[in-house]
Amino acid sequence: MAMQVGTTQWTSQERTITKAALKTAYQRETADIVKLVREKASEVSEIDDLWQLNDFLSARRFDLDGKYDDRDEEMLFVLAKLMKEGWLTVDDLSGLSEEKLTKMKALARIL
Amino acid sequence: MAMQVGTTQWTSQERTITKAALKTAYQRETADIVKLVREKASEVSEIDDLWQLNDFLSARRFDLDGKYDDRDEEMLFVLAKLMKEGWLTVDDLSGLSEEKLTKMKALARIL
Repeated sequence: MAMQVGTTQWTSQERTITKAALKTAYQRETADIVKLVREKASEVSEIDDLWQLNDFLSARRFDLDGKYDDRDEEMLFVLAKLMKEGWLTVDDLSGLSEEKLTKMKALARIL
Repeated sequence: MAMQVGTTQWTSQERTITKAALKTAYQRETADIVKLVREKASEVSEIDDLWQLNDFLSARRFDLDGKYDDRDEEMLFVLAKLMKEGWLTVDDLSGLSEEKLTKMKALARIL
C-alpha cells in the first residue's frame, strides 16, 4: 500500500509548526556549517586548501538551496530528510497529526 | 607608434626567468589570499558571511586561473599586470632585455 504523501493537506496551524521547524533546522544546520568552516579555515595553509574550502561551500550552498523547500507538496519529504539528518526531532514537530508524524518517520527510515 | 607586444620573441633563457617570476608572483599572491581568508574566516558568524566568503573565493579562483597565462604571446601583458598589482618588481625580471622591461613598465602604467 503506497503512502499518499503527495496529497497531504496542511492546516494553517500545521503550516505555522512546519515553518518554525524549518527555521529551527536551518539555524541548527547553518550554525554547524559556520562552526565547521571556522575550524577548516584555521587549518588552511596553502591555496589548494582554499579551493577545497570553496568547493565545500559551493556544495553546501547548493544543498541548502534545494533542501529547505517549503512547498506543501514537498513538506513531508523535506521534514523527513531533516529528521534523518538530525536537524529536527519529533519534538520539533509536536502539534502535527499522528498520521503525518508516522509518515515522516517511515520516510526518514527509507530516505 | 604602437608597441609590438604581440610579436615579442623570448629566448629560452628569458623563458626560464619569466617562468620563475610567474611562480614567485603566484606564491606571493596566493599567500596573501590565504592570509586574508584566514582573517575573514575568523570573523564569520552567520551563514551569509560564509556565502560572501564563497563568492570571494570563487572570484579569486576565476581571476587567478585567467591571470597566470604562460603563453609567449601573453607574457608581456601578464608580467605587466603582476607588476602593476605589486606581485612582481623589476628586480624579479632581472635578465630580460631592456626593451622588454621598458615595454612592460609602459604597459603596467596603462593597464
